[in-house]
Amino acid sequence: MTVYLHDIPLETAQERLQSALEAGGLWQRIGEETIPLDEHALGRVTAAPVWALLSSPHYHAAAMDGFAVRAADTAGAQPTAPLTLAVIGGGANRASTALHDVALRPCTYVDTGDPLPDWADAIIPVELTEPTLEAGGNAVEIRRPPQIRIRASVAPWSHVRPLGEDIVATQMVLPAGHTLRPADLGAIAAAGHTHISVARRPRVAILPTGTELIPVGVKPSRGKIIEYNSIVMAAQIAAFGGEARRSPIIADDLDQICRGLTAAAAEHDLILLNAGSSAGEEDFAAAAIEKLGTVLLHGIAVRPGHPVVIGMIRRPGQEKPVPVIGVPGFPVSAALTLDLIVEPLVSKWLGRREKAFDVVEAAITRKLVSPPGDDDFVRVSLGMVNGRLLAAPLPRGAGVISSLVQADGLALLPRGVQGLEEGERVSVRLLRTASEMRNTIFCVGSHDMTLDLLSEELIERDRRMVIVNVGSQAGLIALARGYAHLAGSHLLDPESGEYNISFLRQYVPRKRLRLVALVERQQGLLVMPGNPKGIRQLEDLARGDVRFVNRQRGAGTRVLLDYHLDRVGILPANVRGYNEEQYTHLNIAAAVASGRADTGLGIAAAASALGLDFVPLFRERYDLVMPVGDEDEPLLVPILEVLNAGSFRAAVGKWPGYDTSVTGSVLVET
Amino acid sequence: MTVYLHDIPLETAQERLQSALEAGGLWQRIGEETIPLDEHALGRVTAAPVWALLSSPHYHAAAMDGFAVRAADTAGAQPTAPLTLAVIGGGANRASTALHDVALRPCTYVDTGDPLPDWADAIIPVELTEPTLEAGGNAVEIRRPPQIRIRASVAPWSHVRPLGEDIVATQMVLPAGHTLRPADLGAIAAAGHTHISVARRPRVAILPTGTELIPVGVKPSRGKIIEYNSIVMAAQIAAFGGEARRSPIIADDLDQICRGLTAAAAEHDLILLNAGSSAGEEDFAAAAIEKLGTVLLHGIAVRPGHPVVIGMIRRPGQEKPVPVIGVPGFPVSAALTLDLIVEPLVSKWLGRREKAFDVVEAAITRKLVSPPGDDDFVRVSLGMVNGRLLAAPLPRGAGVISSLVQADGLALLPRGVQGLEEGERVSVRLLRTASEMRNTIFCVGSHDMTLDLLSEELIERDRRMVIVNVGSQAGLIALARGYAHLAGSHLLDPESGEYNISFLRQYVPRKRLRLVALVERQQGLLVMPGNPKGIRQLEDLARGDVRFVNRQRGAGTRVLLDYHLDRVGILPANVRGYNEEQYTHLNIAAAVASGRADTGLGIAAAASALGLDFVPLFRERYDLVMPVGDEDEPLLVPILEVLNAGSFRAAVGKWPGYDTSVTGSVLVET
Repeated sequence: MTVYLHDIPLETAQERLQSALEAGGLWQRIGEETIPLDEHALGRVTAAPVWALLSSPHYHAAAMDGFAVRAADTAGAQPTAPLTLAVIGGGANRASTALHDVALRPCTYVDTGDPLPDWADAIIPVELTEPTLEAGGNAVEIRRPPQIRIRASVAPWSHVRPLGEDIVATQMVLPAGHTLRPADLGAIAAAGHTHISVARRPRVAILPTGTELIPVGVKPSRGKIIEYNSIVMAAQIAAFGGEARRSPIIADDLDQICRGLTAAAAEHDLILLNAGSSAGEEDFAAAAIEKLGTVLLHGIAVRPGHPVVIGMIRRPGQEKPVPVIGVPGFPVSAALTLDLIVEPLVSKWLGRREKAFDVVEAAITRKLVSPPGDDDFVRVSLGMVNGRLLAAPLPRGAGVISSLVQADGLALLPRGVQGLEEGERVSVRLLRTASEMRNTIFCVGSHDMTLDLLSEELIERDRRMVIVNVGSQAGLIALARGYAHLAGSHLLDPESGEYNISFLRQYVPRKRLRLVALVERQQGLLVMPGNPKGIRQLEDLARGDVRFVNRQRGAGTRVLLDYHLDRVGILPANVRGYNEEQYTHLNIAAAVASGRADTGLGIAAAASALGLDFVPLFRERYDLVMPVGDEDEPLLVPILEVLNAGSFRAAVGKWPGYDTSVTGSVLVET
Repeated sequence: MTVYLHDIPLETAQERLQSALEAGGLWQRIGEETIPLDEHALGRVTAAPVWALLSSPHYHAAAMDGFAVRAADTAGAQPTAPLTLAVIGGGANRASTALHDVALRPCTYVDTGDPLPDWADAIIPVELTEPTLEAGGNAVEIRRPPQIRIRASVAPWSHVRPLGEDIVATQMVLPAGHTLRPADLGAIAAAGHTHISVARRPRVAILPTGTELIPVGVKPSRGKIIEYNSIVMAAQIAAFGGEARRSPIIADDLDQICRGLTAAAAEHDLILLNAGSSAGEEDFAAAAIEKLGTVLLHGIAVRPGHPVVIGMIRRPGQEKPVPVIGVPGFPVSAALTLDLIVEPLVSKWLGRREKAFDVVEAAITRKLVSPPGDDDFVRVSLGMVNGRLLAAPLPRGAGVISSLVQADGLALLPRGVQGLEEGERVSVRLLRTASEMRNTIFCVGSHDMTLDLLSEELIERDRRMVIVNVGSQAGLIALARGYAHLAGSHLLDPESGEYNISFLRQYVPRKRLRLVALVERQQGLLVMPGNPKGIRQLEDLARGDVRFVNRQRGAGTRVLLDYHLDRVGILPANVRGYNEEQYTHLNIAAAVASGRADTGLGIAAAASALGLDFVPLFRERYDLVMPVGDEDEPLLVPILEVLNAGSFRAAVGKWPGYDTSVTGSVLVET
């Protein structure tokens, strides 16, 4: 098996691609087209500087409705000593009334935008003039009374928009490479253009490959994977300013992939082949590119994302080749590969600077290990706790696209860095604006599905809640160390049979705290649909025909199990599978669903997620722990409002296994 | 004349609109539609939370190509003490190989994404295994050798993506009111959806009104204005997430406007009537709304923008009314009205939070006066000079759309504030990202068109130059006070006949400076095409039949004129029009073009802009003044590179009246 992946640094990869494109005459603006000036021009990139053909205004224009005057004629007008001006001209040709027609101290009515008569050099707003009217004067007469009185002088050019005030003919209105925004379109029109020359949108072919892939809409059987990378990539290309075309799924077959590449090369500027970019038996990306052209590199030292192939293939009947990027199959790797490799290329082809990210410094909330040979991009949630900007790492698996959905930023652990200690500072590329992070609540601890509902309700109250699942005990420790606004906890004290209270002083000794009930929930036994083994109570775990699956030591649910086994007098040694440990409620459910075990202890929601039956056994309380009297307290006030609002209780009440009768009660304040 | 404008505070206006919409059942999400999951869903807003129908992965999946094993079977494997595993199963049904078929220490080959066999709980990556092959083994045998050797143990769940690692069926994937980004589409697909329910796009009618308006593409005659507000507004609506339809221009006629409104009301959620929202004779917005419904308010205490009309009109044949906004005619007022009034409304209708702006604090570079009754939004350029973030006010006229094009932010001078002193701090809503401001060069001083070209060339070198035109002397003072990186100056010292040098120590005594030549340029006399008065030299200004127009005192061009009049012995009193002052080169050109004067002194570019002839008289040097040895020096290095590059000189050389032979020379270093 030829494993020929070589991880080369990102910049080297970019340089190698750039050199190949330069050699092929492709490292430049890809083309131009002329489009009309309308809202569809938004986001397009100017292909050349826009020079003004006209000045705007293209004549000296009245900036208000009023009377055009010679400023010198108004000298001496005072509140107590009005001056009288003679109204002349008017109508369609009033603007061109020549000076030699004009009486002493002339004035003439103009609407906003009308040309200033040649003899005039200022406007007096109509509301500062007093018409000298006959009784019963009508509207026409108001605009053309025989005379007006003024009680203040005006300076030359008052309320006049001089020719070219906005734009001067021949000046540069916009540079080349400018991404068009609404106001830009107005300026271009004002400068006398009807159309604009913009960079052509790069055409990008997306070829999903993989025998295991099924299109969106087909129900997946075991081993089949819904092909959605092409949707994400097409959307990224659109967001970068390109045009994407998605091909149907191609099987893992070298010939079919080559045919797909050749067909795409005829009509596209870039081909994204996804996946098969690794070095396994069914990874044909490199082989296909090699067959049709040249592989420039295979493997980039970036995580997630490193099995990237970059090459150039021949374009049928043409001289210039087409670049092909073999994009890794894991969705986070794929998305990051497009951001790092394709966005700069599309920007170059559009003649625009590549996207500049805002970067902030934040303290990492937990220790991270990083491969020292790679630029490691870690998705993080960002929030401000007690005046310190924190970055909480999200799940790092390259298959976890939800981590990209949740990410506020990408923390970069560059090559050479082996990891970070808790609290160490790291640079984070922002994916949201700073204002979106201002109202962020960090909720760290055990997970419960009702936190999703709480989070949803908080949006209405201008708060965003980031939920970090680390378990109850770790949540309280995070609160103590200043890495959380809020901890979610369901820690049973086996001595008292009470939840959480005794642990507050133990884990968070230096803070004043409020313990608020979130919900009461059922823990119980997850069993196959129809409960074929007839499992009804905890005592059934001691039956010889029942295979159990357990949670790991330290989990709140394990504590609960041990407490109740002890109460009914069952020894762990008598529970078959007691030492078989799983780390989440859902893994318990999966073990049962797959037949690996007959039952396990967990929450109803996990059973429901995998279509299992549920035997309720214990009711436990899940609480929120929040600080009192510190600077973040105002941020948390809406949580109490939501907990006491009917809509939250109603939503939770629709789910099996939850009880909201204690929701929102303040149980303890330390 | 009924002037019934009342300026009410912005929040009051918003509340009044909200109340009317609530009363009409219109203060809520406007509707939903279901769209397929593809790149066209980008930017749409979720109409409901997205709950997962499937888990992802929906089975325990291999995260790498390798061999599935029972972790317990690998215990004890060491580099020096390999363990041997028996390869079983494989092929299409290898994943479901049941445990009872399995030999002692079984393993089976799986590709990335394949299901983990039920009996296995870990994957060993293929590159960590050693096949025990016969000589000449082929690829199929590599995947299914009879046995493999391993030299390290694995932990349970190594290289396995457990069921639900990414998404758990029933969990909330996205909340309602979420604006869709590329990765979101992948997460929704992974969760088992093929379509998504999003808020319907609000339909907005844009009705341009005004007898003086002409559509883009018609050559404007004097008094006619190119109608481009509707293009800008349509683009704003698109950017907000709505759908805009632009009607043809409607004349200033109450009946025609009413007919336009009634037609638009049948098919739209909102109507923007532009303009006629003021209180002049030809302003029919308020009257039309009153005729068809109710005016809620007329006039908002916001600058620019205050003559806004808001009302509700009847929708033919339906119960719910349609809101109408009478948008002011000046383009900056119109754009700001949409940002302040329409964006929050569209966001409400989409069920999304209104756009949150990032706000920074900056020091204002010059004194500003502000109407104390209004929220005054001042467009500013932003840049960092010597570590201080500065906001340089752009032209404040409501007709100057180029100020919106150039703006980096909107400084808000709230109601009650009468103005700001130079250097005072002000809150600025950012219109660009902070990273775009990092490489900004503030060039303050006299204007010359070649600065545009310099600016254009700097973009390639990752610099953005903001050009603030205040005149030579004020530029040097700004440099001295720390409000500029760079000053553009053409100050002639009448005693020495030299440019700029003697003024550096006078105006910027405390800084080390470098004086670099930008260009030499022609100053001369601007005359009507064909030069009907036969003006050939400075002495002609003393002719009785020549009407001159002058620049203001302190202008570099005025200094130049006086110096040369003195040299040839002409007294100002003998120049007809010497006391007629204009403030810019272009206003000189306009005075000549309109026939108000026969000639004036200015640069060739101004003559060219208005199609005038030019009589070259004097050559003058225009220099750049930049600090040496301070922290901003590295920012300025690319300027010297550009000045010495052929492309800049070539571009300047194409323009009349410029000479680049001294360009880039360092004339003095203090």
